Amino acid sequence: MLRMNTTMENIKPLDETAMRTARERQDKLTKPTGSLGTLEELSIKIAGISGDSTPKLKDKVIITMAGDHGVTDAGVSAYPKEITAQMIYNFINGGAAINVLARHVGARVVVVDMGVAADIKHEQLIDKKIAYGTADMTKGAAMAYDDAVRAIEAGIDVFEHEAAEKGADIVCVGDMGIGNTTPSSAIAAVITGAPVSAVTGRGAGIDDATLEMKIKTIEGAIRVNQPDGKDPIDVLAKVGGFEFGGMAGVVLAAAAHRIPVVIDGFVASAAALVAYELAPAVKDYMIAAHRSVERGHPVVLDHIGLKPLLDLDMRLGEGTGAALSMSIVEAACKILSEMATFEEAGVSNRA
Amino acid sequence: MLRMNTTMENIKPLDETAMRTARERQDKLTKPTGSLGTLEELSIKIAGISGDSTPKLKDKVIITMAGDHGVTDAGVSAYPKEITAQMIYNFINGGAAINVLARHVGARVVVVDMGVAADIKHEQLIDKKIAYGTADMTKGAAMAYDDAVRAIEAGIDVFEHEAAEKGADIVCVGDMGIGNTTPSSAIAAVITGAPVSAVTGRGAGIDDATLEMKIKTIEGAIRVNQPDGKDPIDVLAKVGGFEFGGMAGVVLAAAAHRIPVVIDGFVASAAALVAYELAPAVKDYMIAAHRSVERGHPVVLDHIGLKPLLDLDMRLGEGTGAALSMSIVEAACKILSEMATFEEAGVSNRA
Repeated sequence: MLRMNTTMENIKPLDETAMRTARERQDKLTKPTGSLGTLEELSIKIAGISGDSTPKLKDKVIITMAGDHGVTDAGVSAYPKEITAQMIYNFINGGAAINVLARHVGARVVVVDMGVAADIKHEQLIDKKIAYGTADMTKGAAMAYDDAVRAIEAGIDVFEHEAAEKGADIVCVGDMGIGNTTPSSAIAAVITGAPVSAVTGRGAGIDDATLEMKIKTIEGAIRVNQPDGKDPIDVLAKVGGFEFGGMAGVVLAAAAHRIPVVIDGFVASAAALVAYELAPAVKDYMIAAHRSVERGHPVVLDHIGLKPLLDLDMRLGEGTGAALSMSIVEAACKILSEMATFEEAGVSNRA
Repeated sequence: MLRMNTTMENIKPLDETAMRTARERQDKLTKPTGSLGTLEELSIKIAGISGDSTPKLKDKVIITMAGDHGVTDAGVSAYPKEITAQMIYNFINGGAAINVLARHVGARVVVVDMGVAADIKHEQLIDKKIAYGTADMTKGAAMAYDDAVRAIEAGIDVFEHEAAEKGADIVCVGDMGIGNTTPSSAIAAVITGAPVSAVTGRGAGIDDATLEMKIKTIEGAIRVNQPDGKDPIDVLAKVGGFEFGGMAGVVLAAAAHRIPVVIDGFVASAAALVAYELAPAVKDYMIAAHRSVERGHPVVLDHIGLKPLLDLDMRLGEGTGAALSMSIVEAACKILSEMATFEEAGVSNRA
């Protein structure tokens, strides 16, 4: 049996007992009931995920997965493809935005080559390369069906070896890949049924004319490939990318291991959408980090049924929004664990 | 000349040169231009405030100011007045939400008694008590005009001795005071001109009937006192409270010292509104932490012209929203200082 299927079967419902205990404790803490809003709800969700009514998020891991895209040959991106590999060196050297934010929130960054179109060998880079970039989806499938499964299973492997085994109480998934808002929009359109124009944005910063062309390129790729919206692997294979498969695998594995997973922006959310279509139970293990500027992001989050934590006009990817959100989730758990109850503090409760 | 006036005269415009240099650096960092959205804008704002084009926020201080309110005799609050003093002990013992969040973001908490209706002596509590709670504003002025000035000057003093002298690169203002959403709504209504019903909410959690009565109580207090909306000190004296004066003083002093000041929720924003009406130039030194659940909060922020950073359905006060936001502001400054430029990282810029 496929490792992917075993992983999906291990995704169980949240622990209702831990959630009830957490909620009862929230109501005894020295604050008006419900006055910490989303922080209270987050802490209860993490209790349900972890099965611990006072969960601690000590080990924090950001998994940033990179891949290249044949469709960039069509000119859909503001930046050249070479940047994907160059940015990997930047990640390794600690100079990228994700490194700065990871240090700020006390998280470890795991960088994974899922399919970059260059040879990069470095002890700090996890090599899961499926191929040197996807094929051009305007001319046929981005990858073979089997490669889509391999990408998901590589993601499961990364989670298990680089996160779970080395210690992870919460993980983030983020992306790096020039051109990867194009497959994101394609995945979003096919799975949610929204028109391509409603889920396609400016990526790293294209102008009106290029945006128009990007929409037509995606519409063309969907027409050529006819992906089956009811088969998320088929969608991933035909109009997706290797890092999408990797991220979907991380999401599935995190849920199977009862570890909360923070979904970064539009690209990571498109990968999470694939995971959600494969195993809807993963939804309860996901936290949507932020609302990206990218037009299709709210459509994807609404389809899954997730409300983003932050709205800071960000559109970088890498896991940057997820890093900031992870710190808020950690704060929420500390509130639940560390605040004094009315009784402990000798504070009168409601009159 | 009043210390308050000297402080206001020391509030100067932002440093345009530092802002320009910061923006130029943001555009050279290894990310698409503008892709970190609000984080980029925040870092540029802090550069302008501090005059440093790569500002560092090492010393973080949360100033939580407490006071009691005669108007609670009218039954406008869900909790008894005794809680204000009880919560001060909770702050001192480190068991309140603000303590947990301050530890999480690495900030120091300064707790100030601006006018609590109980004798509390503790070496960790800054005693600036003007009186044992305000008078009942439904029957006359909450305090004398001179006491309103004294409260503001006490706030200036707290900022200078407890923040500036001991080290502060950024400060937050937060509040504690049973009943203090009532004066907040009164201040908001008088200064912005909005109807009382449009700026009055449920505070710590009152029911519909009590909310109705709270609105009538505030309308009555405004009718009895006839505060002059063009004289913020008169408004503070007649329908405000001691902790509002203290927070307004902190805001003015922070701006005069070119230190960014994060405004917590509705109550702190009502105090910031008083500071803004006294010296509109303070606006550039303020950061609105979050959008509170309290109905009047957006009205006050819109009047000042501030956009809140977070929206997490919080309504606790104490500085809790400000603490979380301060960490995001710190992250923004680290992005500006610590990220590699395209040249440093050997990454190609836009095609």
